[in-house]
Amino acid sequence: MLGKCITNVRNNVPLVHNITNYVTVNDVANVLLACGGSPIMSDEPDDVEDITTICGGLNINIGTLNKSSIEGMFLAGKKANELGHVVLLDPVGAGASALRTNTAVKLMDEIKFDVIRGNISEIKTLALGSGTTKGVDADVADAVTEESLDSAVAFVKELAAKTGSIIAITGAIDLVADSERCFVIRNGRPEMGKITGTGCQLSGMMTGFLVANPDNKLEAAAAAVCTMGLAGEIGWSRMQEGDGNSTYRNRIIDAIFNMDEETLDNGAKFEIK
Amino acid sequence: MLGKCITNVRNNVPLVHNITNYVTVNDVANVLLACGGSPIMSDEPDDVEDITTICGGLNINIGTLNKSSIEGMFLAGKKANELGHVVLLDPVGAGASALRTNTAVKLMDEIKFDVIRGNISEIKTLALGSGTTKGVDADVADAVTEESLDSAVAFVKELAAKTGSIIAITGAIDLVADSERCFVIRNGRPEMGKITGTGCQLSGMMTGFLVANPDNKLEAAAAAVCTMGLAGEIGWSRMQEGDGNSTYRNRIIDAIFNMDEETLDNGAKFEIK
Amino acid sequence: MLGKCITNVRNNVPLVHNITNYVTVNDVANVLLACGGSPIMSDEPDDVEDITTICGGLNINIGTLNKSSIEGMFLAGKKANELGHVVLLDPVGAGASALRTNTAVKLMDEIKFDVIRGNISEIKTLALGSGTTKGVDADVADAVTEESLDSAVAFVKELAAKTGSIIAITGAIDLVADSERCFVIRNGRPEMGKITGTGCQLSGMMTGFLVANPDNKLEAAAAAVCTMGLAGEIGWSRMQEGDGNSTYRNRIIDAIFNMDEETLDNGAKFEIK
Repeated sequence: MLGKCITNVRNNVPLVHNITNYVTVNDVANVLLACGGSPIMSDEPDDVEDITTICGGLNINIGTLNKSSIEGMFLAGKKANELGHVVLLDPVGAGASALRTNTAVKLMDEIKFDVIRGNISEIKTLALGSGTTKGVDADVADAVTEESLDSAVAFVKELAAKTGSIIAITGAIDLVADSERCFVIRNGRPEMGKITGTGCQLSGMMTGFLVANPDNKLEAAAAAVCTMGLAGEIGWSRMQEGDGNSTYRNRIIDAIFNMDEETLDNGAKFEIK
Repeated sequence: MLGKCITNVRNNVPLVHNITNYVTVNDVANVLLACGGSPIMSDEPDDVEDITTICGGLNINIGTLNKSSIEGMFLAGKKANELGHVVLLDPVGAGASALRTNTAVKLMDEIKFDVIRGNISEIKTLALGSGTTKGVDADVADAVTEESLDSAVAFVKELAAKTGSIIAITGAIDLVADSERCFVIRNGRPEMGKITGTGCQLSGMMTGFLVANPDNKLEAAAAAVCTMGLAGEIGWSRMQEGDGNSTYRNRIIDAIFNMDEETLDNGAKFEIK
Repeated sequence: MLGKCITNVRNNVPLVHNITNYVTVNDVANVLLACGGSPIMSDEPDDVEDITTICGGLNINIGTLNKSSIEGMFLAGKKANELGHVVLLDPVGAGASALRTNTAVKLMDEIKFDVIRGNISEIKTLALGSGTTKGVDADVADAVTEESLDSAVAFVKELAAKTGSIIAITGAIDLVADSERCFVIRNGRPEMGKITGTGCQLSGMMTGFLVANPDNKLEAAAAAVCTMGLAGEIGWSRMQEGDGNSTYRNRIIDAIFNMDEETLDNGAKFEIK
């Protein structure tokens, strides 16, 4: 089921406009190419409307926001909404600063997002208007675990209903939900947390998956999460003695480059709740 | 003939000032180091004149332009012209937005470029004052092919004559021309299009090649194109089962690091028209 | 002795706020993760005070400074000082432009730095209020050599006394000193100079080392230098035929990822003068 989604990406070659942080931007571009999409980056307010117009989707990531790029986010998001494009929000560090929290909340007020993807802490911040974030990782105490799964699933469906967006919370267990159905995904490796930007990469890729699968956006979002997690497993299986997080980063992107429908269907580990 | 150009880079260690996009900037720096040059990056208007003064060449890439960096491009370009430094323009995304097209055209009006390097779509935009770009890759319909080669060669020579710049169009077949001679280059691999920034990397490296070969700028530009394409071939030959675009990126830069005069002379595939 | 410092980093997981250049920022983040820390990047003046408040240390790197990020550096630095956080200055390109020199000097006037880390040319610029820098590498003529070692040690201790900061000068021989003691470190490989950003990476990692070793800051700074140099040696020993500077970059970060107390204690090559 989910495997078909990546085939559609490879056939459709979705062009994705990314307003994303400068820390992980190169990896975001290479992951989009790896999965079959095509990236373009632009954050200048005078440039973003033209750029987003020629794209199929827009990925807004607030990881290294500044006054100018924030203005670009609003302009691009509104234009993309006008054109009916896919729009995704990655609220990096929401909860860690007032500017980040307020920007994410205001973006949600003024722009309609197809997906909001973050860690549990960031998503809770957006949901509750409060919360704390340690860097860009979820606090352990707030992690989605087998014990907290049912309440987390309820939370994510409720937020999806409230916002009208697909909500994707990534961590040891990933949740991807609309108001009715929640994909509970158990792909991935804990070592992925030792690489900067796997979340940012996922957001870029997920935008491409939605563009290429317009009639199955929830499945597309879940397929992107499974692709990233499975690539983390495949990449880890190829690690040699002496390899570390830098090589692991390369191997994950390589595994996405080589991912096909059959591999994804066989490797995806999910249930629907 | 062309091999000598890289030896000159290794002996001269040209310092290149790059005003370049934040997507591929790290690779641009590492490619410049790989070929024997030395990179420095600066886009702040209050900084660029001092920085370009201590360099031998200036590489202007408009890939993630903003109001401030655009101002930096004009200031740096004029200062580099004043000092007789090599100046290169990489008009990333010209044709994709009004800001990019207008900035590139205005840069060409106010600054004398030794080389303008882009894909066919970007170069046509600059030539015709119109055109469309899909992301940062050439539209297939506009590709330089064996069938369209003669007209493309005529076009590039004409543009070189009109602008007084060397024009380099890269794609499946690369063209590097002044008004009299056009190098038609057939190095490279189609898989290079699955890595972000091989064009940006080439622009940085090409600037270094021109600085180190001031009396043979056309040959130097062609040698840089052959070096990148040949590195793409060598890098591809070293790919292992399971490798993908991220590892390929590393292998290409590695191949440039190991490129020597003999390898380049033996591997360069070009004719002069 | 120094090995214990990295164990403390792995146990403490220091969160480090980086205001750093966009050229090498991804590697800085991955190196911080490799050594056991956690990175967060923010340069927007309206964001930096909140972000630095939740961190343990602040790494200020002026490599691609702009008017906005300079304002961010002062705001973050003052807030970090107020909170008693570790603050490090990496004066990239001081001496290469008036803006860089003046910004570094003004930062030193208004902010108390625990460490100032740069190459000999940058540090001399800060010490003397003059000097020249070729790109971001030390001029060979100004290198710390066995012949010039005694005078360099005296210089660095004097500057440490004058500024109240630990001074770290990295090059073929590395010096890390306070006013009393100077670690003279002979780890590393000359090929590390063919990778962009090993200095930036070291600055990020060193900040984390100081946060996790608050009672032994001089040892922590020296341990970070030994870790980077030793990783350069280990990474080089793993190079294969055909590998170059891009693969070497990955192998160095990998070696930091795998560095443990025993390896560091056995491999660290230093004397105290």
